[in-house]
Amino acid sequence: MSCDAPERRVVRVSPGGHAYDVVIGDGVLDELGPRVRELGAPNRIGPLLVVTNPLVRDLYGERAASSLEQAGLAPSFVEMPDGEKFKTMKTLESILDAALRRGGDRSSVLVALGGGVVGDLTGFAAATLYRGVRLVMVPTTLLAQVDSSVGGKTGINRAEGKNLVGAFHQPSLVLADTGTLATLSPREYRAGLAEVVKYGVILDEALFDLIEREAPRIVARDHELLGVIVERSVAIKARVVEQDEREQGLRRVLNFGHTVGHAIEKVSGYSRFLHGEAVGIGMAIAARLSRSLGVCGDDVPTRLERLLEALELEIALPADLDRDAIVAAVAFDKKARGERVVFVIAEAIGRCVQRELEPSALRAVL
Amino acid sequence: MSCDAPERRVVRVSPGGHAYDVVIGDGVLDELGPRVRELGAPNRIGPLLVVTNPLVRDLYGERAASSLEQAGLAPSFVEMPDGEKFKTMKTLESILDAALRRGGDRSSVLVALGGGVVGDLTGFAAATLYRGVRLVMVPTTLLAQVDSSVGGKTGINRAEGKNLVGAFHQPSLVLADTGTLATLSPREYRAGLAEVVKYGVILDEALFDLIEREAPRIVARDHELLGVIVERSVAIKARVVEQDEREQGLRRVLNFGHTVGHAIEKVSGYSRFLHGEAVGIGMAIAARLSRSLGVCGDDVPTRLERLLEALELEIALPADLDRDAIVAAVAFDKKARGERVVFVIAEAIGRCVQRELEPSALRAVL
Repeated sequence: MSCDAPERRVVRVSPGGHAYDVVIGDGVLDELGPRVRELGAPNRIGPLLVVTNPLVRDLYGERAASSLEQAGLAPSFVEMPDGEKFKTMKTLESILDAALRRGGDRSSVLVALGGGVVGDLTGFAAATLYRGVRLVMVPTTLLAQVDSSVGGKTGINRAEGKNLVGAFHQPSLVLADTGTLATLSPREYRAGLAEVVKYGVILDEALFDLIEREAPRIVARDHELLGVIVERSVAIKARVVEQDEREQGLRRVLNFGHTVGHAIEKVSGYSRFLHGEAVGIGMAIAARLSRSLGVCGDDVPTRLERLLEALELEIALPADLDRDAIVAAVAFDKKARGERVVFVIAEAIGRCVQRELEPSALRAVL
Repeated sequence: MSCDAPERRVVRVSPGGHAYDVVIGDGVLDELGPRVRELGAPNRIGPLLVVTNPLVRDLYGERAASSLEQAGLAPSFVEMPDGEKFKTMKTLESILDAALRRGGDRSSVLVALGGGVVGDLTGFAAATLYRGVRLVMVPTTLLAQVDSSVGGKTGINRAEGKNLVGAFHQPSLVLADTGTLATLSPREYRAGLAEVVKYGVILDEALFDLIEREAPRIVARDHELLGVIVERSVAIKARVVEQDEREQGLRRVLNFGHTVGHAIEKVSGYSRFLHGEAVGIGMAIAARLSRSLGVCGDDVPTRLERLLEALELEIALPADLDRDAIVAAVAFDKKARGERVVFVIAEAIGRCVQRELEPSALRAVL
């Protein structure tokens, strides 16, 4: 690299022998072509399909295409509709068929250009096309950059719940362009911050402290801070995923706030809350549950709620949501194991444990 | 086991760290319950769904259910229609939804009771349900016992070709009850023999010799010989899969006769030939191609064709099948790599190599 090369933060992720880089920085999207080329050796790069949605394509499609073409690659594009409700088998089939029409074989590459929904679906398509092809993630939302693009979870929703069908399929490369976060709506940006706060609560008190201290600059999307919090979040997730790729133990700590968060999304029909918004409320409830079990003091829910509010996130379960329906949905969540549910409980900021509880344990704190 | 326990042949398969047993023998179906129970420790056995088709359920459903129930398990059954044309995303969804309605989590177990189509679909469902649950294969056809139930390939067909979408997902246990082969139609039984012959041609001259010597007893489904040829075939497949689980090299030798075989199935609309029948013709053509390339002498196609005929398998491409369409289908086969196609070529009985050729190389021997 030349001496005026832009700053790049690189987190290496090595789950189960397979290793890949998450490259973080402003403008890294324009390095897509050469970085995909580097994946080629010693295998060739086959047909390359970019999966995106109309909004993201308008914003970043040309830059992606131009970078790929300048690297001598010939990308095709396929668009899927935007939104969680399109995370279906039908959309999966449309991506697979676009790839199959293009022809190719296991040297094919799928690129996910967009947020979590685009990433989850493109990842599942890459896991199953020809029984597995390479996947490049180019997450353009904060949520996707700090969470869903790293770790290999892919999937779709079914009537019974979210992400019930899918695959573990690690990407070969992740490019997190923090410059793309400038175009997020305030609501989507805040929803992503909820996941960053989660990493602080479960494993990194220093990250939590940093967000507390710098909340106003983070809300203002300070360029330097964005690089820092994305890198810190990805590094935590990488460490967890490396130790437990298939979520047989440790990885479940990443579900802090998610057990209730998923139930909130389900009960409200997956349209009222963004995932991160539901997780924000879910974390506040999980912290109150932790205190009610005597596992932590008042400081944990108090600091967490104060921070979520400073980031302009909701912390209260809306009065019109049926509490019993939330408890029932928790009991049906895929993380349920028999009669009991594994909850992630905070012992302190930066330290958490897993505990099996009756879903009804939740009722008192709702 | 007591001293009057029936004879059991066990092949251990260990691809990529994950190990499982293929248990072969007459009546092993009745050991399904206790053998699934053994899988449990240290993990519990969650909801158990048996996937089958109406014909197989009539024959073996009660024995399977009774063995499972006696072991304290509570199986549900779901039926799918019989036949290659139902190896679709729609059937996959019906299996997934049956499992999701039953509830459960990653401790769930899917059992495939039937032939190759049931196995491929149930395997794909097990690969993707909750991002992967345990799979038990109970193959009831010769083809499934010697080939598709071992090695972890699962998948469905798309308009563009067979098995274009799927996953690698190894079973946790395979029970090959050679007693179930007695109820196969002569046509299905012969089709399975084609795959057994294939193992002889590519890697095991002694197996080929045995089939040559004992062809009449094999056609008559001699009980003792069935155990021998299933065990030998599974052992060869296990050895190949252990060295190359993801088909990046060696495993492609298992495609001897399949490149043309798949093309025959495709051109004839997947309804005229059974897979093994098409592979029989494909092997005869591959042997002639090998000779035309000067890689082997006359003896290879001559011995192979004589043996296939002794097993009452077709060796000639029917006159009404369009030769150019076959060549075009080979060029579009998923094993195509760019402009050239990897053919498996026989150097001798028991020894083969992979060679990239123009699809047109095939034209002369069709």
